[in-house]
Amino acid sequence: MSEFDLVIRQARVATASDCFEADIGIRDGRIEALGAALAKGRQEIDAAGRVVTPGGVDAHCHLDQSMPPPLRMADDFESGTRSAACGGTTTVIPFAAQEKGQSLRAAVDDYHRRAEGKAHIDYAFHMIVSDPTPTVLNDDLPSLIRAGYTSFKVYMTYDDLKLDDGQILDVLSVAREEGAMAMIHAENADCIEWLSKRLEAAGRIAPRFHAHSRPMLVEREATHRAIALSELVDVPILVVHVSGREAVEQIRWARAHGLQVHAETCPQYLFLTAEDLGIDDSYKGARCVCSPPPRDKGNQEVIWNGLNDGLFTIFSSDHAPFRFDDPEGKKPGGQEVPFRHIPNGIPGLETRLPLLYSEGVLKGRITLSKFVELTSTNPAKAYGLHPRKGTIAPGSDADLVMWDEGEFELTNARLHHAVDYTPYEGMKLKAWPGLTLAGGEVVWDGSNFHPRAGRGRFLSCGTPSLRPQSR
Amino acid sequence: MSEFDLVIRQARVATASDCFEADIGIRDGRIEALGAALAKGRQEIDAAGRVVTPGGVDAHCHLDQSMPPPLRMADDFESGTRSAACGGTTTVIPFAAQEKGQSLRAAVDDYHRRAEGKAHIDYAFHMIVSDPTPTVLNDDLPSLIRAGYTSFKVYMTYDDLKLDDGQILDVLSVAREEGAMAMIHAENADCIEWLSKRLEAAGRIAPRFHAHSRPMLVEREATHRAIALSELVDVPILVVHVSGREAVEQIRWARAHGLQVHAETCPQYLFLTAEDLGIDDSYKGARCVCSPPPRDKGNQEVIWNGLNDGLFTIFSSDHAPFRFDDPEGKKPGGQEVPFRHIPNGIPGLETRLPLLYSEGVLKGRITLSKFVELTSTNPAKAYGLHPRKGTIAPGSDADLVMWDEGEFELTNARLHHAVDYTPYEGMKLKAWPGLTLAGGEVVWDGSNFHPRAGRGRFLSCGTPSLRPQSR
Amino acid sequence: MSEFDLVIRQARVATASDCFEADIGIRDGRIEALGAALAKGRQEIDAAGRVVTPGGVDAHCHLDQSMPPPLRMADDFESGTRSAACGGTTTVIPFAAQEKGQSLRAAVDDYHRRAEGKAHIDYAFHMIVSDPTPTVLNDDLPSLIRAGYTSFKVYMTYDDLKLDDGQILDVLSVAREEGAMAMIHAENADCIEWLSKRLEAAGRIAPRFHAHSRPMLVEREATHRAIALSELVDVPILVVHVSGREAVEQIRWARAHGLQVHAETCPQYLFLTAEDLGIDDSYKGARCVCSPPPRDKGNQEVIWNGLNDGLFTIFSSDHAPFRFDDPEGKKPGGQEVPFRHIPNGIPGLETRLPLLYSEGVLKGRITLSKFVELTSTNPAKAYGLHPRKGTIAPGSDADLVMWDEGEFELTNARLHHAVDYTPYEGMKLKAWPGLTLAGGEVVWDGSNFHPRAGRGRFLSCGTPSLRPQSR
Amino acid sequence: MSEFDLVIRQARVATASDCFEADIGIRDGRIEALGAALAKGRQEIDAAGRVVTPGGVDAHCHLDQSMPPPLRMADDFESGTRSAACGGTTTVIPFAAQEKGQSLRAAVDDYHRRAEGKAHIDYAFHMIVSDPTPTVLNDDLPSLIRAGYTSFKVYMTYDDLKLDDGQILDVLSVAREEGAMAMIHAENADCIEWLSKRLEAAGRIAPRFHAHSRPMLVEREATHRAIALSELVDVPILVVHVSGREAVEQIRWARAHGLQVHAETCPQYLFLTAEDLGIDDSYKGARCVCSPPPRDKGNQEVIWNGLNDGLFTIFSSDHAPFRFDDPEGKKPGGQEVPFRHIPNGIPGLETRLPLLYSEGVLKGRITLSKFVELTSTNPAKAYGLHPRKGTIAPGSDADLVMWDEGEFELTNARLHHAVDYTPYEGMKLKAWPGLTLAGGEVVWDGSNFHPRAGRGRFLSCGTPSLRPQSR
Repeated sequence: MSEFDLVIRQARVATASDCFEADIGIRDGRIEALGAALAKGRQEIDAAGRVVTPGGVDAHCHLDQSMPPPLRMADDFESGTRSAACGGTTTVIPFAAQEKGQSLRAAVDDYHRRAEGKAHIDYAFHMIVSDPTPTVLNDDLPSLIRAGYTSFKVYMTYDDLKLDDGQILDVLSVAREEGAMAMIHAENADCIEWLSKRLEAAGRIAPRFHAHSRPMLVEREATHRAIALSELVDVPILVVHVSGREAVEQIRWARAHGLQVHAETCPQYLFLTAEDLGIDDSYKGARCVCSPPPRDKGNQEVIWNGLNDGLFTIFSSDHAPFRFDDPEGKKPGGQEVPFRHIPNGIPGLETRLPLLYSEGVLKGRITLSKFVELTSTNPAKAYGLHPRKGTIAPGSDADLVMWDEGEFELTNARLHHAVDYTPYEGMKLKAWPGLTLAGGEVVWDGSNFHPRAGRGRFLSCGTPSLRPQSR
Repeated sequence: MSEFDLVIRQARVATASDCFEADIGIRDGRIEALGAALAKGRQEIDAAGRVVTPGGVDAHCHLDQSMPPPLRMADDFESGTRSAACGGTTTVIPFAAQEKGQSLRAAVDDYHRRAEGKAHIDYAFHMIVSDPTPTVLNDDLPSLIRAGYTSFKVYMTYDDLKLDDGQILDVLSVAREEGAMAMIHAENADCIEWLSKRLEAAGRIAPRFHAHSRPMLVEREATHRAIALSELVDVPILVVHVSGREAVEQIRWARAHGLQVHAETCPQYLFLTAEDLGIDDSYKGARCVCSPPPRDKGNQEVIWNGLNDGLFTIFSSDHAPFRFDDPEGKKPGGQEVPFRHIPNGIPGLETRLPLLYSEGVLKGRITLSKFVELTSTNPAKAYGLHPRKGTIAPGSDADLVMWDEGEFELTNARLHHAVDYTPYEGMKLKAWPGLTLAGGEVVWDGSNFHPRAGRGRFLSCGTPSLRPQSR
Repeated sequence: MSEFDLVIRQARVATASDCFEADIGIRDGRIEALGAALAKGRQEIDAAGRVVTPGGVDAHCHLDQSMPPPLRMADDFESGTRSAACGGTTTVIPFAAQEKGQSLRAAVDDYHRRAEGKAHIDYAFHMIVSDPTPTVLNDDLPSLIRAGYTSFKVYMTYDDLKLDDGQILDVLSVAREEGAMAMIHAENADCIEWLSKRLEAAGRIAPRFHAHSRPMLVEREATHRAIALSELVDVPILVVHVSGREAVEQIRWARAHGLQVHAETCPQYLFLTAEDLGIDDSYKGARCVCSPPPRDKGNQEVIWNGLNDGLFTIFSSDHAPFRFDDPEGKKPGGQEVPFRHIPNGIPGLETRLPLLYSEGVLKGRITLSKFVELTSTNPAKAYGLHPRKGTIAPGSDADLVMWDEGEFELTNARLHHAVDYTPYEGMKLKAWPGLTLAGGEVVWDGSNFHPRAGRGRFLSCGTPSLRPQSR
Repeated sequence: MSEFDLVIRQARVATASDCFEADIGIRDGRIEALGAALAKGRQEIDAAGRVVTPGGVDAHCHLDQSMPPPLRMADDFESGTRSAACGGTTTVIPFAAQEKGQSLRAAVDDYHRRAEGKAHIDYAFHMIVSDPTPTVLNDDLPSLIRAGYTSFKVYMTYDDLKLDDGQILDVLSVAREEGAMAMIHAENADCIEWLSKRLEAAGRIAPRFHAHSRPMLVEREATHRAIALSELVDVPILVVHVSGREAVEQIRWARAHGLQVHAETCPQYLFLTAEDLGIDDSYKGARCVCSPPPRDKGNQEVIWNGLNDGLFTIFSSDHAPFRFDDPEGKKPGGQEVPFRHIPNGIPGLETRLPLLYSEGVLKGRITLSKFVELTSTNPAKAYGLHPRKGTIAPGSDADLVMWDEGEFELTNARLHHAVDYTPYEGMKLKAWPGLTLAGGEVVWDGSNFHPRAGRGRFLSCGTPSLRPQSR
């Protein structure tokens, strides 16, 4: 047997089910063999005593997405994938967002142009369906699903995006026909609007009132409704960014009744609380404005339990990059604005894996295999990229992370995104990626980023494989 | 690199998380490498297009266990492991059962003698603690756990085995101190006794009244109680042979509240119902007498949902081998006897995997990875044998099953146990193991068993690894 | 003490809490005294051994309500109150329904004109709010509530009536400010529309498909949503015509969490099933078309349990009178029409009490006091008419029913409404009202109706009193 | 009509369903009439503007019950009924407690002797069955039930009282045959013993560790088990002194599944918390030692919600009178003792009604009718004393309370029991009974007690009437 391109020696390899020591032999960007004492590689990396996990798959992130002026997302496909890679993520699945009146295909083409030649790591697209016209339902959506865009997201809130229940049934029906995965943002739009107006009328406009405008019941109600719609159509759904107990209870109920309801959560629901939106009327809480809002310590425990227990399928960042001190970001027009006008979202592509590895695995809250499952294997399965992505096995892409354990202080200065803050500034972590390989190439060596815009290829997605297929 | 002892070519390898195509290179009884185009083997097996799974780990089976005369278990370690191997199982964990008055160490020594030189596949022991004297609690049990017997079972019913709640708290407390896994048979003894006497007094003694004497609430109550005891001690437990909805609901409740409650189910709760105990007073239903009794179709669906959904951790056989037409078995003394005197238990070592593979995987009810997880990986983890057992990875024992798909009629004639019936006689299956490797040796080739009593070694168990360990 | 106008001797008086034997002394249309050996009455009725209950309060019935032509409700205030009285009901609370574009006050005035001089028994009005304009919210609704119209109904379905969630929050907010009771018809409009179109497209248009177009989850979802809206506003609601398990479970959840959610059910959910809509495509099932549709036997049991257990506050008829063989009724234009065009509703004013008394009280499913509570006391409390209505106590109106027990065959021929059928034709009952007193006058003597249109007065309603009032 | 013995004028009469203004005419110790302007009485009491409720029925209190020496209950039938009367209670149902080895009939006879000639108000007996021998089950218990002792209590804890599950099934089976009501003290004895020993071994013996020895799960488990036993036998039970959320959830589950499970709670679970057992090792917390122990503020809210919502059927005192500074009471032998040796129980006969009236009714947490239902009507129904006791209606005993509203400071100095403390010392209340009538006689006039030992008669109980009887 001829030489490998690269051999990683004596890695403590972790998959979603197993941990074992092995050499990893890589050729042509793929893992060719795992075993003891593999043949030589032209390049070799010593991993003795080091944990190696599959590169992260971030299945919920927003890059270069169109915003109403003057807002602008801080990260495009270049800076976003750079940041991802430096945090151990080797695949991103951002959104191709349909605007009202736009054809879905035009949206997909548009986002391809935005990504073209910029990405440092591989990427696929979810679609956002905001205008399910007959053409979209009968033509665009089915044909795009068949063409490798096998997942889409629908919103139950946000004026420019939300679908009504009938429209959601229509698109779920296409998901069922075509075997696509539907992601649902579950918050009740009317309740939010009603509360927001009342808060506004009462002069309660500081960032912290963002949480008051979206109490847990707003999410619980929409989660229940989303489950009912999925039950009616008899199709799996994935509820994104679940924030706490009441929504979790709805999903547990669904599962116990045999419904195929998957759930995602994000770092903000483990590490932030509503107090991070401010305990006074100071504007700085704007940095942590995202939806649903972070809840409280008790809800954090519920989320940890759900991660451990199998309730959650996927752990994503929901990276939505807006600068803080900037007219294009959290201060539209350069002014402090009422909470309703602060763009929703926080950055997280680069911190997702280190946070969960450090606070979850190394603090004994979840197993190493559970970490791999939530951050890589399951997202790859849910969106039809497995086993090419999401695991360490012969034939899989050589997307790997080797972990450094030690003391790491999380500061925005060490991050690589284009956002001017991180909500986790100053947090002390116990681990950070010491090496990221994407397609067998080193993109992050623990100190330096190794750029090659365009290295990242578009991934055509297959059928979601979280569930058994009847034969 | 020198030749492998054996290479399996182009297998469709399934682990609990992944499915991929690879050659499997085996040396000295272990898997040394997985990869494309591995080096030659002295022996080679073509697996092109065939699914290869880790050998089964049957974590709940009774072999050569002492019974009150004239009863006798039909299978000893020779016939039991023979039967297991022919059904794709390569590790068994039967019980070393303490008798009242006996020291626990004496029980363990005794069962070692019974197994010595007989087993065709590897084995470990669970202990059954029936007499938790201060010596047992303070001395035997802790030292045996440290010596590699890291799991034990307690009974909430059966006069000769049952512990009261205080005794269960005592042994759970040791499990907590020593990091052992406690298995619990959860049925309320008093309720069963009370109902049985009433049924008997009313002349209702046919086998079918066995089910009447142990209605679901009897299991639900004990399951709730077991959970409460585990919660009080703050230690994980594993509830064995869960039969249906009401017990499942208790376990779901526990999980949702963050309690570490694992659950096992068995083929009899997927494929039998109480009607298999007879719909009249005929005695032949005695063959299906086991505890808890099989329930009904609705409960079978609940169990399938629980397998799919993650509620169940382990799928075992609870093989308890009694002959039917035999004074040593289901007709003690050669006579048909009232249900209370029919030995509880049915055979299942050889049929466990084919039933679940055929009816679960091939009928699209569970994924192939879920099959591996339930039948092999999780039992190995739960009882401290992973990753030596329970997966296909470099360094793991070369315990493998290659599956034949086709039409197979399940008859007792083709089985290899010493029992004179199977409860599944005549069932049409879609798959059967076409090859079983144990430690790299062929023990079953799809047609013939390749005996070598004594090949099977005793396995000293490590710490259960289902849950994260705090560092 | 002077003579009473009327004394009922030795009645077995039943209230919502007590049953005792007493004479009932009546003067000026009111109960003046209860006791042994009361003074003489100018008129006396011997009730020895007979149960006397408070006259029924039917808090959910539709009389002379506007319909799109050619439809017309069969019962106006004359025939409706005649029928009610002959069935033991002495108070009705039909609806003053706002049409889109109409002021709420105009609607109330309109329905007053329809009732004027026609009613044989007392009546109040619920309002239906279908167009919550700022004027309605800020002006009409508060002032009407203060003027004695202390309850209103909102619809989550039906194109001409439904409110969106924001509108419901608006009206609930008024209910909170003014202390009114909000009734909610909970079915998800979009789901019904989506299903109906699909059924229609598939040619599934027979009456039985009405049930298919409104499965239980459609009601469950809307019930959950209604509860969430009420929780957000922190105001009690009453969910009308609850049909079965899934909705009941939502309401139980709300109660257990301390939410003030009341529930109503109706005879059709105890005595009809979806099969009464037809098991083939025959049109006659149209007679039982109502919404939500009747479910199945299992759900009937759930409703019985809920009546017994305190889950249900009120038992109403939801009388919605459409003739069957008639262009103005279930055959609009005289033609059999697709299920979507069959008017929803069935008659029930006269049969409500006898059905529940016979099948509930006399068959031992509910106590006599529970019967009184559900059919009279609680509706009177919920809508601010208690203790004038809803009980037998000094000072209350002399609205009474004396029961005949025996064999009664329920046929439409013996009923007094203007509808040409009853869904319960041929049912054998064990009791029927043998006497109805309204305001101390005999309106039904067990054989004959004693008409006096205009006897019935409009009742101005006070504050709902189901719940404690903080002082 | 001749004069009444006594007329109460213009009372605001409250029953469990209604509130109305009426005169109450009393003759021969019974209520003869209710009405406006009743005929004269030889005695008249002006109640204008005052609330009059039925006298309280305290269905859970311990009087002169045998204790192991040197312990002694402070209240016998004289002081106990005196205290009760001064707090508005006119009927008590203490226990005739069987000792192991004693016949049940002997126990009943014994307690009759203890009560004879001492009681100021009427009394009945529950039996405590602690030794269900065949004679007890087949002979004593059935015949005593038929003789008017229609309720009994069983204990799942306390060494001298507890029954095992089989024994409980036996006695429940008699309850089913004979139509008796079974009360169950639900705590898991083994868990308490196990925890207590561990606490003791660790030197944790102060009163506050009493709560640690009986955490909520100990009560939850036993409640679940009691429900299962009742379900198996198909007989109603009443779970006494429910203390908080986890037990409440079990009972809600039972109700939702149609099981006839009643529940009682007590003032200590509304007004005390575990902190009242002491927050340091001081001994004075011994005063509040009772079982189950008081929980926390959150659980108090759960209990309030359960009272309001219908979950609780009965509100009792569980009066168990031990003196604090006394060798016969909380300091057996005159010494401070470890928590395991402090007698369980607190006084409450006199404070039960004022606490709930003041904090429940007057603070708007429950309605006045709910107060009557919980404290008088339902206990009378549950134990077969209704409508003689438990309501204000013609024919009922003239047992009445007229309430004074104002400021009342609760101090032991104003109480009439023989205990030297009240756990509620210093509490500010808003009401106190201003008059108690028992059998038409004034026993408490708001300032003075009017003794007449022997006035109270033994009440033979009928069939419990909380549930419908099939005819």
